[in-house]
Amino acid sequence: MSDTRGRRLRAGIVGGGRGAFIGAVHRIAAQIDGEAELVAGALSSDPVNARSSAQAWYLARSYDSYAQMAREEAARADGIDFVIVATPNSLHFAVAKAFLESGIHVVCDKPLAYSMVEAAQLAALASDRVLLGLTHNYSGYPLVREARELVRAGRIGTLRKALVEYNQDWLMEPLERQGNRQAEWRTDPARAGISCCVGDIGTHAAHLLEFIAGQPIALICADLTSFVPDRRLDDDANILLRFEGGAKGTLVCSQIACGEENACARVAVA
Amino acid sequence: MSDTRGRRLRAGIVGGGRGAFIGAVHRIAAQIDGEAELVAGALSSDPVNARSSAQAWYLARSYDSYAQMAREEAARADGIDFVIVATPNSLHFAVAKAFLESGIHVVCDKPLAYSMVEAAQLAALASDRVLLGLTHNYSGYPLVREARELVRAGRIGTLRKALVEYNQDWLMEPLERQGNRQAEWRTDPARAGISCCVGDIGTHAAHLLEFIAGQPIALICADLTSFVPDRRLDDDANILLRFEGGAKGTLVCSQIACGEENACARVAVA
Amino acid sequence: MSDTRGRRLRAGIVGGGRGAFIGAVHRIAAQIDGEAELVAGALSSDPVNARSSAQAWYLARSYDSYAQMAREEAARADGIDFVIVATPNSLHFAVAKAFLESGIHVVCDKPLAYSMVEAAQLAALASDRVLLGLTHNYSGYPLVREARELVRAGRIGTLRKALVEYNQDWLMEPLERQGNRQAEWRTDPARAGISCCVGDIGTHAAHLLEFIAGQPIALICADLTSFVPDRRLDDDANILLRFEGGAKGTLVCSQIACGEENACARVAVA
Amino acid sequence: MSDTRGRRLRAGIVGGGRGAFIGAVHRIAAQIDGEAELVAGALSSDPVNARSSAQAWYLARSYDSYAQMAREEAARADGIDFVIVATPNSLHFAVAKAFLESGIHVVCDKPLAYSMVEAAQLAALASDRVLLGLTHNYSGYPLVREARELVRAGRIGTLRKALVEYNQDWLMEPLERQGNRQAEWRTDPARAGISCCVGDIGTHAAHLLEFIAGQPIALICADLTSFVPDRRLDDDANILLRFEGGAKGTLVCSQIACGEENACARVAVA
Repeated sequence: MSDTRGRRLRAGIVGGGRGAFIGAVHRIAAQIDGEAELVAGALSSDPVNARSSAQAWYLARSYDSYAQMAREEAARADGIDFVIVATPNSLHFAVAKAFLESGIHVVCDKPLAYSMVEAAQLAALASDRVLLGLTHNYSGYPLVREARELVRAGRIGTLRKALVEYNQDWLMEPLERQGNRQAEWRTDPARAGISCCVGDIGTHAAHLLEFIAGQPIALICADLTSFVPDRRLDDDANILLRFEGGAKGTLVCSQIACGEENACARVAVA
Repeated sequence: MSDTRGRRLRAGIVGGGRGAFIGAVHRIAAQIDGEAELVAGALSSDPVNARSSAQAWYLARSYDSYAQMAREEAARADGIDFVIVATPNSLHFAVAKAFLESGIHVVCDKPLAYSMVEAAQLAALASDRVLLGLTHNYSGYPLVREARELVRAGRIGTLRKALVEYNQDWLMEPLERQGNRQAEWRTDPARAGISCCVGDIGTHAAHLLEFIAGQPIALICADLTSFVPDRRLDDDANILLRFEGGAKGTLVCSQIACGEENACARVAVA
Repeated sequence: MSDTRGRRLRAGIVGGGRGAFIGAVHRIAAQIDGEAELVAGALSSDPVNARSSAQAWYLARSYDSYAQMAREEAARADGIDFVIVATPNSLHFAVAKAFLESGIHVVCDKPLAYSMVEAAQLAALASDRVLLGLTHNYSGYPLVREARELVRAGRIGTLRKALVEYNQDWLMEPLERQGNRQAEWRTDPARAGISCCVGDIGTHAAHLLEFIAGQPIALICADLTSFVPDRRLDDDANILLRFEGGAKGTLVCSQIACGEENACARVAVA
Repeated sequence: MSDTRGRRLRAGIVGGGRGAFIGAVHRIAAQIDGEAELVAGALSSDPVNARSSAQAWYLARSYDSYAQMAREEAARADGIDFVIVATPNSLHFAVAKAFLESGIHVVCDKPLAYSMVEAAQLAALASDRVLLGLTHNYSGYPLVREARELVRAGRIGTLRKALVEYNQDWLMEPLERQGNRQAEWRTDPARAGISCCVGDIGTHAAHLLEFIAGQPIALICADLTSFVPDRRLDDDANILLRFEGGAKGTLVCSQIACGEENACARVAVA
């Protein structure tokens, strides 16, 4: 990897083409402090969309496939320093693997993979020299950092109770049968994996609790539901939690909680 | 029962003597609209406390026992129209029974009794002529009535999700071993029954949800804990709920939720 | 005045008959802690209303005039200990004067009188033996008491800035010409005095600030407006304040602030 | 000006070097949607700071003076499309003038100039071909746009009352005598102009009201204060407002409002 002193980091992205949701968020987040600039991408599995999307973002280099991108960027003197993986879940593993193997740092959207086996494989590919980061972005808020510090410093004593909620309502209706691409892949087991609601937003909630609590959730008792008829994955979950250290609590997440747009708002520990 | 036209209702109270908590709340609630006045009481099982407490409240008649009170008030031409039962839980059944059998209306604090058997017995004693009321007082708030109306009128569609919380922190420490009378009886199975936290405040939370939802909770999966060492009853609970009509949700209640004084604050339906 | 030990205080009220607003509030406030009971009243200048209103409140004694009431209650062995003055503003002075001169304590609604001259006259009639109280009730809240203590103890340093608002919207429309009795007298100079909005609610706001600040407002620059056409008194005011100790700020009060029901909510000192 | 199709806009900045406050905010704001990139700057009147600051931001071109920058950028084929003016107030006029005269669009921080005369001069230099924008940034919030629409559409009727507050506390102490560079120039009449508090934040508050109200403030009665001893400009203001259309209200702004970090929070119209 080339020397990064005196210049912005060079970033690439896989996914994020027109019609995508989270790619643009990654683009802004990567560039906001002026320390990185997005220069290359394989923005879509559809080559036409990939190219026009790259043009719309003024990217210097556009690729038709992530494999080609990993190979060619690794070979360039001015190749990207890191890649953002912003594809549907089904591709996270393969894309992350390709870039890690090419020696390019990876910033991957959650969830990392489909299974613990795949996740362990990626973890094994990562090292001090080739980093693998997972964007549980809510843990970046100063408020969350402060909460973790209070727990870590023993300011609230031994943790007994922990509650978290992440509620949305955008899947109240069967959008996946009404042409909404985001709803299509997120409710499709082939592309989203074994869960819609828990995998998409419950994972943020669980990470927040463990991050603040400073200990893993050890046991769960979960009640997952698909409230919308014919939906193939869960759109709601109510979960009892037991932490390793003895604390207990609940994790509630929903995509059918009418009136909530994106309420990752309730985290309480006592 | 005498004619109540042109006069205030005459109320009596059992319990509520010095050191009690909820008696004074009942006294205020009964009198606040000017339609009733508290005139008689058996305020404590300790006769000295009973008398001095009655004096402090300027009651016209003080009794040493609820049995005597039920008997004598029923016999008086100017006897009480209704009695408030504000004793520890263990006496609810016996006191309510005595007054109902004497033909005096009963307003009883929750929980009604120790068991479904006892509750059914009291329900059988009540009638259109001798009323039995249970003070799930939170259902009196206009906001709660409005919520129930919205559900009833179909304004929020079919109920899918319901959450409720009732959190306190006053039992974070073993107050029952530090001379706190309220903590003593509430954590004593002989006086409180089979539960402390769920019986004392979870019952309010459950009632609120069922009241608003307009349907009973059909199934629960509950994780009750006594976080304070050597406590004999639960001081915290996390409960998964399933309603008769298919809705799901959680009920969280706690007496060790640091920072919460009396937060019966979160009720959400969708 | 008779011995008050071992019994509730006996209260009387002038004003508060059917159609009145604040009388019922005084009745509840006087009785809520169980230390007083309302037994007598001259509830209306209309004798029929006075009598039926007294009956509806189960009062022992009803009078057709406050003068008769002051005279006769002062003469009874079981006469009232204190009187509540809950009439329109125009009668505050005369009623308070009559009872103070009869040796009966007075609890008067604000504003005390029409002019500083009248106010001084009443203050001169009051003494340690015959008390005169003015119900600036908002100063009773624990939050307000705590704020005053913080200022008094020097916890916020020297006061520099103070803001207060009291906003309502009930007079947005010309209710005084639509049969609303409350609006009629409050916008009538003959019955309300020289101000509607400032006299009715601005007075609460000003008292709150002075109570918390612990110092009088020394100078004002006020912009009073009657926004509703043909209204004879102000329904809105914006006022610059200067305190004796050098602090500055604003007092905003309005009866045409759409969306505000009774928002005496913003008090800030720095 | 060169064709901007198919590329990001090229931005320059005057001011914003190390130790500055608002320059970095402009940099982020200009680049956040990916439609512009900052390539040139005269970041400080101190050439050493100017150069090292430009290096820290990875700028392609750094200038020692804004005059040189305006001249040379105007002459380049790949010169900047627009310049951001983020200097202390005293330079706004001269810098904006220089770039407008060079045919480069200007985005200037508020306040535009020292006097109405200067402001008019700048306005005269601007045209459809060379744009001059003033960053009253709060008017960009969707909430504010919605409020303006409600007023414009007549949804709240004729405007009667308007309140706005902008409170900070960072100048509670004499920071200008404790080495704080931001405090130094903002309280210095030579660099800040005739006002500190009103010019710095009151201007935002006033703009918000006028923007939402859709009409200018016609008359004011202002009480400006320098609460910190020996401060040369105001650090607090309480202002009565009258709008052209008859509405009234208040504008409160403060830099000594203890507990408020940057509370441009209260805007109410009725």
